[in-house]
Amino acid sequence: MTSSPAVAIAPPGEDELRTAVQDAGGRVAEPGEAEALVWTDPQDPHGLKDLLDKTSIKWVQLPFAGIEKFADAGILDPALTWTCTKGAYGPSCAEHALAFMLAAARRLHVHLPAKSWAGQGPERRLKGCTVLIVGTGGIGRSLVGMLKPLEPRIIASNRSGRPLDGAERTETSDNLTELVTEADYVVVAASLTPETKGMFNREVLEAMRPDAWIVNVARGGLIDTDDLVDVLQKGGIGGAALDVTDPEPLPDGHPLWAMDNVMITPHVANTWNMALPELVEMVRRNVANFSEGRELEGLVDPALGY
Amino acid sequence: MTSSPAVAIAPPGEDELRTAVQDAGGRVAEPGEAEALVWTDPQDPHGLKDLLDKTSIKWVQLPFAGIEKFADAGILDPALTWTCTKGAYGPSCAEHALAFMLAAARRLHVHLPAKSWAGQGPERRLKGCTVLIVGTGGIGRSLVGMLKPLEPRIIASNRSGRPLDGAERTETSDNLTELVTEADYVVVAASLTPETKGMFNREVLEAMRPDAWIVNVARGGLIDTDDLVDVLQKGGIGGAALDVTDPEPLPDGHPLWAMDNVMITPHVANTWNMALPELVEMVRRNVANFSEGRELEGLVDPALGY
Repeated sequence: MTSSPAVAIAPPGEDELRTAVQDAGGRVAEPGEAEALVWTDPQDPHGLKDLLDKTSIKWVQLPFAGIEKFADAGILDPALTWTCTKGAYGPSCAEHALAFMLAAARRLHVHLPAKSWAGQGPERRLKGCTVLIVGTGGIGRSLVGMLKPLEPRIIASNRSGRPLDGAERTETSDNLTELVTEADYVVVAASLTPETKGMFNREVLEAMRPDAWIVNVARGGLIDTDDLVDVLQKGGIGGAALDVTDPEPLPDGHPLWAMDNVMITPHVANTWNMALPELVEMVRRNVANFSEGRELEGLVDPALGY
Repeated sequence: MTSSPAVAIAPPGEDELRTAVQDAGGRVAEPGEAEALVWTDPQDPHGLKDLLDKTSIKWVQLPFAGIEKFADAGILDPALTWTCTKGAYGPSCAEHALAFMLAAARRLHVHLPAKSWAGQGPERRLKGCTVLIVGTGGIGRSLVGMLKPLEPRIIASNRSGRPLDGAERTETSDNLTELVTEADYVVVAASLTPETKGMFNREVLEAMRPDAWIVNVARGGLIDTDDLVDVLQKGGIGGAALDVTDPEPLPDGHPLWAMDNVMITPHVANTWNMALPELVEMVRRNVANFSEGRELEGLVDPALGY
């Protein structure tokens, strides 16, 4: 029992998306006639709301994993089915986290700007270090697999305490202040929700080891930026590697720019070039799932906002 | 049939080495009474020669993997059994190569020195890229395992063409000029011998793709430095990430220091802190092997010098 669902793509995106819909047995249609919508603009929740008000779309595929802008705008109507790309972008973000951890371990933040041969500093291997992964969605799951050959100890934390495969143990987020005391690297890989906003505040950051690094490839708002600056200025932690910041972009002259033990990349853990092929594959799979009445991948809980 | 071999440690090294000898059933002895020697100074081949001339030692364990200084000094007497730590330091050097590749892919050489939020550049994932591993000893073997979860295509090259497990294919080094044309990352992980010295010369470097990076975690002399500078100045390759250089240390004011697409770390892929635990474990295993008449790990071919 299969059908050929009418799927709209708006704003009109890359050709690969149309091909994916068709390959999966769907028919690319105008929004007014469509049952399903692939929304392509991660910055425009209101444009999406305007469009949905005029259509009878039942399923919306969002193009990013972090959809807090759409949740905050109140458009996640629970009467519709919502999917986002959670999971699909996990590997690219996890790879960025790994790049940051290795850069910190090998002291690339010191060596790359140097213009003279230095002696050995306290470079480290990841072997035997402890990595705490906070958030066990797509990024956390991918990161475990990437870390395994490097032989660190892995511990994890999430909302429910549900075990992360490959972690020595997984605790609930309310134990964060204790859990961070064990970690050489704390990887922030959680969703940004009202509950998780600022979860890395002064108390948690101060509990970290003085040589531990915090790595954020998720959302800037998960860390309280002012608290982070204070703790860094006091030498309370080893350093911070941030692909996301709050505010973002980080303004010129912000104290974080001046710190030797802070690495900043401008939200490039999962660029559009990296994301598009994964989104295309997800659309292909989900149109097929929709068409055959199977459960969709990347389902969003409108109440939780992720 | 086990014995308790007399093993000398010279110059007297860390306590952990004595403990390893004893744990493996050996007896720590003066060089004059010893059958075996753990030599602890990687910089002093002549001191070793002087000592061997006065003793009847049959097996020498060297403390490093790259033993060209000892080979060049002509002290690898083929009448003795020689072992080095080849293999044992593979994982730490491979991890450094991985750090370099990820740093290049994620453009940390651009982002880390920046003091302002930039747009997305051509950041890449390793997924789908081609990594050429030149040299399939301990570093190459470890690197394959570390790369697998990141899903690059892996090809390899070595003297004999003997397949590297996990590589799509392995060719002999005389095909290097053709093989590099396929690679986004060329990882230099070979031993330095008269045959391999300068194997990355102008011809090979110019054959590389204009956006490909060369990563050297083995020995500086494997790359012709003047040729590398020329090819970089002409934009012939994407960049170079070097933990080892020729000359080493790289002198102040050398043109490589001034290039934005060159990353240099001061020979820290395997620091003494990283190496010691691995050396200790190898001594433990090899003293047990020696004591029970089994083949030793890390056997050196005195004729080949590695």
